[in-house]
Amino acid sequence: MSKLKGACIFGQSGGPTSVINASAAGVIQEALKQDCITGVFGAAHGIKGILNEVIYDMSKEDPYELELLKTTPSSALGSVRYKLKKAKEDETDYLRILEVFKKYNIRYFFYNGGNDSMDTCNKISKYMQKAGYECRIMGIPKTIDNDLWGTDHCPGYGSAAKYIATSIMEIYHDAKVYDKGMITILEIMGRNAGWLTAASALASCKGYGPDLIYLPEMPFDIDSFIDNISRIYSEKGNVIVAVSEGIRDKEGTYISEYGSDLAKHKDAFGHAQLGGLAATLANIAKEKTKAKVRGIEFSLLQRCAAHMASLTDVNEAYMAGQAAVQYAVQGITDKMVAFERADQSDYKCNIKLVDLSDVANTEKKVPLEWIINNGTGVSDEFVKYALPLIQGESRPPFEDGLPRFARLKKVLAFLK
Amino acid sequence: MSKLKGACIFGQSGGPTSVINASAAGVIQEALKQDCITGVFGAAHGIKGILNEVIYDMSKEDPYELELLKTTPSSALGSVRYKLKKAKEDETDYLRILEVFKKYNIRYFFYNGGNDSMDTCNKISKYMQKAGYECRIMGIPKTIDNDLWGTDHCPGYGSAAKYIATSIMEIYHDAKVYDKGMITILEIMGRNAGWLTAASALASCKGYGPDLIYLPEMPFDIDSFIDNISRIYSEKGNVIVAVSEGIRDKEGTYISEYGSDLAKHKDAFGHAQLGGLAATLANIAKEKTKAKVRGIEFSLLQRCAAHMASLTDVNEAYMAGQAAVQYAVQGITDKMVAFERADQSDYKCNIKLVDLSDVANTEKKVPLEWIINNGTGVSDEFVKYALPLIQGESRPPFEDGLPRFARLKKVLAFLK
Repeated sequence: MSKLKGACIFGQSGGPTSVINASAAGVIQEALKQDCITGVFGAAHGIKGILNEVIYDMSKEDPYELELLKTTPSSALGSVRYKLKKAKEDETDYLRILEVFKKYNIRYFFYNGGNDSMDTCNKISKYMQKAGYECRIMGIPKTIDNDLWGTDHCPGYGSAAKYIATSIMEIYHDAKVYDKGMITILEIMGRNAGWLTAASALASCKGYGPDLIYLPEMPFDIDSFIDNISRIYSEKGNVIVAVSEGIRDKEGTYISEYGSDLAKHKDAFGHAQLGGLAATLANIAKEKTKAKVRGIEFSLLQRCAAHMASLTDVNEAYMAGQAAVQYAVQGITDKMVAFERADQSDYKCNIKLVDLSDVANTEKKVPLEWIINNGTGVSDEFVKYALPLIQGESRPPFEDGLPRFARLKKVLAFLK
Repeated sequence: MSKLKGACIFGQSGGPTSVINASAAGVIQEALKQDCITGVFGAAHGIKGILNEVIYDMSKEDPYELELLKTTPSSALGSVRYKLKKAKEDETDYLRILEVFKKYNIRYFFYNGGNDSMDTCNKISKYMQKAGYECRIMGIPKTIDNDLWGTDHCPGYGSAAKYIATSIMEIYHDAKVYDKGMITILEIMGRNAGWLTAASALASCKGYGPDLIYLPEMPFDIDSFIDNISRIYSEKGNVIVAVSEGIRDKEGTYISEYGSDLAKHKDAFGHAQLGGLAATLANIAKEKTKAKVRGIEFSLLQRCAAHMASLTDVNEAYMAGQAAVQYAVQGITDKMVAFERADQSDYKCNIKLVDLSDVANTEKKVPLEWIINNGTGVSDEFVKYALPLIQGESRPPFEDGLPRFARLKKVLAFLK
């Protein structure tokens, strides 16, 4: 079989992670090696870079800097949140993409992102097929939320989980340092899926974990929360709570939208919450227990702390990018690279392929049977699942005591 | 000269740091080596452990665990915020301390903390002298705030500075990932001294620093802040601001106490600010620029992130503890161990001694001549000062992908 000859383009999409650039390194380094790939392009800000024709020639980059992508956080080419309309409804974007693909002879399209990005891949692929333009389209998974369907886990999750578990172990030491008690409330990302919040249980394995863990998979009851913290506070004099940003009550209202006034569950602050969920819960906890309370939001740090990444995650993210190129060259298209765990006692991650259309709009949540203690903890099954994903320490080289991140030249492709 | 024979006791006080336990290791390991020191005790929760006679026998600890103290954050023996009254006004605590010292034959007292702890040392020392009880009393500095008088810098500062600069470099990558702009406001500890907030300028050296840096040494003007962020946002489409938790306006009002209502500088939220300064400023910035704004508080993480400590800081903290013991054994008392920078081109830190009474109630702030750009940046002199302090990477050993911290047995001293 003669291989499809042409250029490839790579784009990054959605919220960044600590390892999305490791997948970029995998794609770019592998593509540069393939004879049938005649040009290796990078799109600035994902699909928008194609639409606006801001396209970089990745072959112009220094190989050392490409190597450094493995330990550089966030999306080096820039990211985007842009949802393509259905081609039936509005063909404009698709016509433009086809035009750019033809102009640069792009025959391979690699897109690195979450659910929405797989939807984008899928739509473009279907359109190209209809237009009779031969193009191999592969999705590469990425999300700290770990909520992609069809894969054992997602690149980005392990590093975020490792950062969160490590930071909680450290906060545990700090928060319990005085003989006077304190209640600490930790807000963790993951709007609909509690995988990252559950990672706080990894700190518990070492004896330095939260007392209570609340995932968005279960309805959150504020009265039961108050009962729990009050009880633990009076027993132990200290409480640490890990809570997902996305917890909602039975009626589906986000707790982050609650005011401090419990009677009404509204206002006082209800009109525009300043400090997010951690602050809201801290305020409620303070009002009810009169204890010293501190709310801590991990915020962006949990998804960009490349200085504390999981080496397993970095390696797998790289492998996912590399595999996407190799499969595409072999003739595969319309698939997302996914992971499956080898059926053996020691952990091993194998590549498999799943249909883009299956991944596009499904979310994978934490199995309800892994949520225990009336929705305040996770089981050993979760720990067994997550622990292999945080193994090994990855960090950038340090220069002058600070990380040395990749510096790309971003040379515009000459054809513009 | 015959050496003073007797036991020593060590205590930790005030807000913890990433390296206060490295000083503990220095004291304990050195004291265990000294023939004239007949017992090595640790006080639970600083001075309170002496008052309440909760005293551990440190010779019962496993040497491996003592070694791990060098990379274990927070205060392993527990900390305290307790201000001794003047002996003239109330002698109770002093009589009790003397009683405990006599009971355990404590002839050496090492206290690790900030301004207040040096005040405690000083008061106890003066009292013991008056009571005719021979006891060598040495202070060991500690504070992430770097605000202790009489020392070039403080153990704890370098690690917090390194964590902050590294995290800002990572956040910089994340916050600029979309083509749509964002304003990011970073709240950093240091109520009266801006040393830690200034450390954000270390990230600037690498090209990934904040656009604006506001220290508490200068009055903060909200209108000028809004002008600055609006201007930079319209020029660059992105703004990163590092701000000290302690900034105040001309009238001395903490900005964290401002409401979101600029006209009145009060209320709407003014009655009880939920999210602290970052949230307050984020809200104000959002209202004025209509941009996407994110407030991030480094919170406890900046003082307990042992996984990203400065090796220089860890080594110096250890050396400070060790030196305190060595000097006391040589007959020195009533001093705080301090650092001075050797007068040579490459950085070297020497030990010197300063009077406890001089350190007790003085705060060292960032020199005003180092604050530039109308109070929105710091000069190269600051960078030259701070950069050597963050050199070298220290972190705990990792087991199962997570840090392995010291586990002390905390065996109560037998005499109780």
